[in-house]
Amino acid sequence: MEMEVSKILGYCNSRRLAVVPQGGNTGLVGGSVPVFDEVIINVGSMNKIIAFDKVQKEAAKLVEMFQLMQVVCAFSVMALFMGMYLAVLTNGDVLDMVGTLRKDNTGYDLKHLFIGSEGSLGIVTKVSILTPPKLSSVNIAFLACEDYPSCQKLLSEAKRKLGEVLSAFEFLDSHAMDLVLNHLEGVRNPLPSSAHNFYVLIETTGSDESYDREKLEAFLLRSMEAGLIADGVLAQDINQASSFWQIREGIPEALMRAGPVYKYDLSIPVEKMYNLVEEMRVRLGQSANVVGYGHLGDGNLHLNISAPRYDDTILAQIEPYVYEWTSKHRGSISAEHGLGLMKANKIFYSKSHETVQLMASIKKLLDPNGILNPYKVLPHSLCSYS
Amino acid sequence: MEMEVSKILGYCNSRRLAVVPQGGNTGLVGGSVPVFDEVIINVGSMNKIIAFDKVQKEAAKLVEMFQLMQVVCAFSVMALFMGMYLAVLTNGDVLDMVGTLRKDNTGYDLKHLFIGSEGSLGIVTKVSILTPPKLSSVNIAFLACEDYPSCQKLLSEAKRKLGEVLSAFEFLDSHAMDLVLNHLEGVRNPLPSSAHNFYVLIETTGSDESYDREKLEAFLLRSMEAGLIADGVLAQDINQASSFWQIREGIPEALMRAGPVYKYDLSIPVEKMYNLVEEMRVRLGQSANVVGYGHLGDGNLHLNISAPRYDDTILAQIEPYVYEWTSKHRGSISAEHGLGLMKANKIFYSKSHETVQLMASIKKLLDPNGILNPYKVLPHSLCSYS
Repeated sequence: MEMEVSKILGYCNSRRLAVVPQGGNTGLVGGSVPVFDEVIINVGSMNKIIAFDKVQKEAAKLVEMFQLMQVVCAFSVMALFMGMYLAVLTNGDVLDMVGTLRKDNTGYDLKHLFIGSEGSLGIVTKVSILTPPKLSSVNIAFLACEDYPSCQKLLSEAKRKLGEVLSAFEFLDSHAMDLVLNHLEGVRNPLPSSAHNFYVLIETTGSDESYDREKLEAFLLRSMEAGLIADGVLAQDINQASSFWQIREGIPEALMRAGPVYKYDLSIPVEKMYNLVEEMRVRLGQSANVVGYGHLGDGNLHLNISAPRYDDTILAQIEPYVYEWTSKHRGSISAEHGLGLMKANKIFYSKSHETVQLMASIKKLLDPNGILNPYKVLPHSLCSYS
Repeated sequence: MEMEVSKILGYCNSRRLAVVPQGGNTGLVGGSVPVFDEVIINVGSMNKIIAFDKVQKEAAKLVEMFQLMQVVCAFSVMALFMGMYLAVLTNGDVLDMVGTLRKDNTGYDLKHLFIGSEGSLGIVTKVSILTPPKLSSVNIAFLACEDYPSCQKLLSEAKRKLGEVLSAFEFLDSHAMDLVLNHLEGVRNPLPSSAHNFYVLIETTGSDESYDREKLEAFLLRSMEAGLIADGVLAQDINQASSFWQIREGIPEALMRAGPVYKYDLSIPVEKMYNLVEEMRVRLGQSANVVGYGHLGDGNLHLNISAPRYDDTILAQIEPYVYEWTSKHRGSISAEHGLGLMKANKIFYSKSHETVQLMASIKKLLDPNGILNPYKVLPHSLCSYS
């Protein structure tokens, strides 16, 4: 496979033909979209499991994950799962970094250059992925908090008290909940008795069903006594558990059904995160519905602004304000999604001039003719294309 | 601090004066040793905690860790704990990658280029470190296994059954145990009733003392019934726990006291790891004592060959055999220690020609005059120094 890619890249490079590597096409920032006349290299058929450790029998599911992640997906958030790589460079060189070692300290760590580079430095044709044994016991609670500081305190307590079994801590505000209830079929609020301002989904994963459940129950009881949560319910079976996740995971679809939406994927220190949502509500007033949700445990806010129509007046209220605010609070303007085409020129909100300059030098070193996924990731001004 | 380093580097670069960054001087491969007339930049006084998250009160201990890790320590194995960086380049540029975000996907991940680069690409002057809340319950067991396959099976069972609380899985062979008992004061074998071929130390870390202990006890009982362990003891208090760790951690000192020693720090797939130790025993016969121990959970073998004297005949029996064997089994010739001065020319045993060539190009890009820690990490043939 890598030899085919090597030949294609070698040919395109010698003729100065630009290429766009394309994978699952699930990106949100135009990272896999050809802009002019680029040749598309679709890697969707690279879905073969070459080998897996005999201990791991469940790797089949990974194929699907890999297809989603392939090449142009900005998958740095998956880094923990990833081992080594095989990448093909524009000069046709095949960089063999595949291996299954957990520790290796020989020379520079090149693998991370490719992770999250959105197909702009080379084309990845093989990965090795660490798959820890699946733990048998999963418990999920859906909780209500009255204010954002309570969500924050709850997170801090959960890290302390649930420690090693805490596997997810997600939050959504009442705007997100309303959207899901109004736009998705068959979704109901697990805590319908009264309206709440915030909802939190906590998941624990461990190896002992009865103990893990007891532990989560004790944590919820203490949190309720401490006034951190106003209400809550523990999933009684797998169906209820998946209905809780459906609320959280249904938000993007509900937003799409509600109409035009401006989407931002930000990392912001947890204590300041929700201030941005509130400030945007003040700025936009009745003209749009500002929705906040995300991975609170990771400091990752998905800020979505749902408007009746795409409108330059609304956009001017949002940008560059959102980017400047994020930059001022030393956040990242792209936590998971990458920069792609749409945000390439916004990189300076999160990275210094010197840092971006070095990135451009590395791009130039690896892709001197600028054939790989042009107009993406780095600002146009810094990259000269053939 | 970074401005001082920037001025020094800028000056040295303009005058083409080579520099060696020096930190804790704990390296084992000569990474911080000046070779000719290099200027030493000692960063040992960079020990200030600039800020820490209010949730974390125990960060003080980290200062010491940071000093050990500073710059020339090849600390890629610490990567999980590390956040962003501030690095100073040879042209005096300060790359500000400091931040406390868990997720950031804007542009290329440059931070990992510096981690483990042994001070050859830039000088790190600030780091941010993720310090998870300290969990309160630690349990330690010291076990005996009759053969290496049992150690392996025990590891695989421990990953499955202890899952989220398993925090260490270390092994040593009887040669290592004998060395510690013979050369260190006050150390005794916790399992003295009969001699065993292998010993394993298992540590669990969790948030619930009684449950965690119960879980480990149940695991040990099952493992004994299954014949995986021949004998075992669970630490009854903190003194006993630390006496178990003392055996494992005392091995390097015991080796030094025993006389000249050839040291190798290898990553090898777990199932083949101990074969190398046995093959070396056959090769060396009575001429040396071959000792195997290490982080079995990480696939990391410390192979130590204790000899009556440093001897070219013995060395010729060891090298390049050990490197070739490791390379053949797709292992790494340096799991944790880095390459430094002593192993720079050995990099091809673990990395392909194309990969090393790209590393050299990146070195050239970041340090065009080759002033930073020359003769280290990469083969001399690929780097031209001023």
